[in-house]
Amino acid sequence: MVSELLNQIRVVLVEPTHPGNIGAVARSIKTMGLSRLVLVNPKKFPHYEATKRAAGAESVLDETVVVASVDDAVADCTLILGTSVRDREVTWPTQDPRESAVKMLNHLGEVDHQVAILFGRESSGLTNSELDLCQSQIRIPANADYSSLNLASAVQIIAYELRMQSLAMQAQEKCNGLTNDVMNEKGVKERQQAANKMQRDGHIQHLQSILEALDFIKAKPPTMLMRKLTRLYNKADLTIEEIQILRGILTAVESYIKTNPNSE
Amino acid sequence: MVSELLNQIRVVLVEPTHPGNIGAVARSIKTMGLSRLVLVNPKKFPHYEATKRAAGAESVLDETVVVASVDDAVADCTLILGTSVRDREVTWPTQDPRESAVKMLNHLGEVDHQVAILFGRESSGLTNSELDLCQSQIRIPANADYSSLNLASAVQIIAYELRMQSLAMQAQEKCNGLTNDVMNEKGVKERQQAANKMQRDGHIQHLQSILEALDFIKAKPPTMLMRKLTRLYNKADLTIEEIQILRGILTAVESYIKTNPNSE
Repeated sequence: MVSELLNQIRVVLVEPTHPGNIGAVARSIKTMGLSRLVLVNPKKFPHYEATKRAAGAESVLDETVVVASVDDAVADCTLILGTSVRDREVTWPTQDPRESAVKMLNHLGEVDHQVAILFGRESSGLTNSELDLCQSQIRIPANADYSSLNLASAVQIIAYELRMQSLAMQAQEKCNGLTNDVMNEKGVKERQQAANKMQRDGHIQHLQSILEALDFIKAKPPTMLMRKLTRLYNKADLTIEEIQILRGILTAVESYIKTNPNSE
Repeated sequence: MVSELLNQIRVVLVEPTHPGNIGAVARSIKTMGLSRLVLVNPKKFPHYEATKRAAGAESVLDETVVVASVDDAVADCTLILGTSVRDREVTWPTQDPRESAVKMLNHLGEVDHQVAILFGRESSGLTNSELDLCQSQIRIPANADYSSLNLASAVQIIAYELRMQSLAMQAQEKCNGLTNDVMNEKGVKERQQAANKMQRDGHIQHLQSILEALDFIKAKPPTMLMRKLTRLYNKADLTIEEIQILRGILTAVESYIKTNPNSE
């Protein structure tokens, strides 16, 4: 299962100062389906502020591993990435969060692979020697005039990209003919299905006949107006139910006209 | 400039409870190059907690607009999107943050277009009637077992996608070596501009009055039907010209009814 790959990815916070941020990070990763958090020398942990900000993601905090050095955090990892919003003098190979999510999940295709993503201190990020441990750098493309991303926000963006990529891979797996269940499930919501061409054409023809009965259409053929109306309703991606509603309204106008023929 | 388009997008927080979240949101959007924040009935604002969590993004708080209702927040908007992590019983057209970022930035290609993104209360999100104001819903694909995204985190993800898309468009612009001629050309076609909320509401109210005159609507208030119709037309992203055509048709029905009153 693709979603299980996310359990092979650990988020490593290096010397976080504020316990509230640790809780917020736990929440960020759990919302995106990740679960593994490692703290290198946290200033305060466990701490009630962390628990409070975790807001239901305490399961992540309960399993959080505390270690004394970055080396200890990543020793068994086959791929290590460091995060940064700053430009550095020394340049590491750098990817944006989207590219790095693809890289990580592809890497996890192999058995027993483990990935670590390092996030630096709130005040000063990762040191150059910590970045030297990394195979590449994830650079979040922040506003150059104000790149002060909150720690949990930085984690959130990268966890989000991992989730998007894992969902894309799941969809791909399904597409590959593994199951047609999805299709069947859609089948039951029949009225919510998109209307087909014939149904859409039927509505437009019905509309045109009413507009003629109302003398709203005078030119024949009423090409331009009907083309505009067709385009308008095409933009709405009408469902079968919506076509039924619209035709219901047209029928109401039609029967009013029949019951009360034009006296002029 | 593509980056300036981000200034035409406002983040609207509906009844935020915690002032700290307001500050965190200000920080989130500024890191991604957005600047406009609107608060609907905040519980506490201004507040020292907001200022503290803004951490350097006070410029956003200084310009933050406080209004009394969602309607006031979005009246001049040509595109309104609502955010959600929940599945709803009624389904709105839904996009993920990436798709919606593309939609928003494409929409802003037209002059004078304004976009609002609504974020709901921390506890309960947006109400159904608030989502009814929206042309579509942005659904963050969170973990089904724990979708409790922090407010600033939800904003961060969407602001991040907007930034990624605007950077992609900038790169594209450079590639094309195009001047802004295309933009200007589009600008003169005023009637092709998206209708704003007031114009869209005017159409729906006109439609409702005709449906009542036709006895098509019997239940009062006709909530469900009108909600479905609102959603249907919202999906079409109506232009000013299209609203004019639809209202023209409604006026034709209206005058037919007046000229030929119901004889039954």
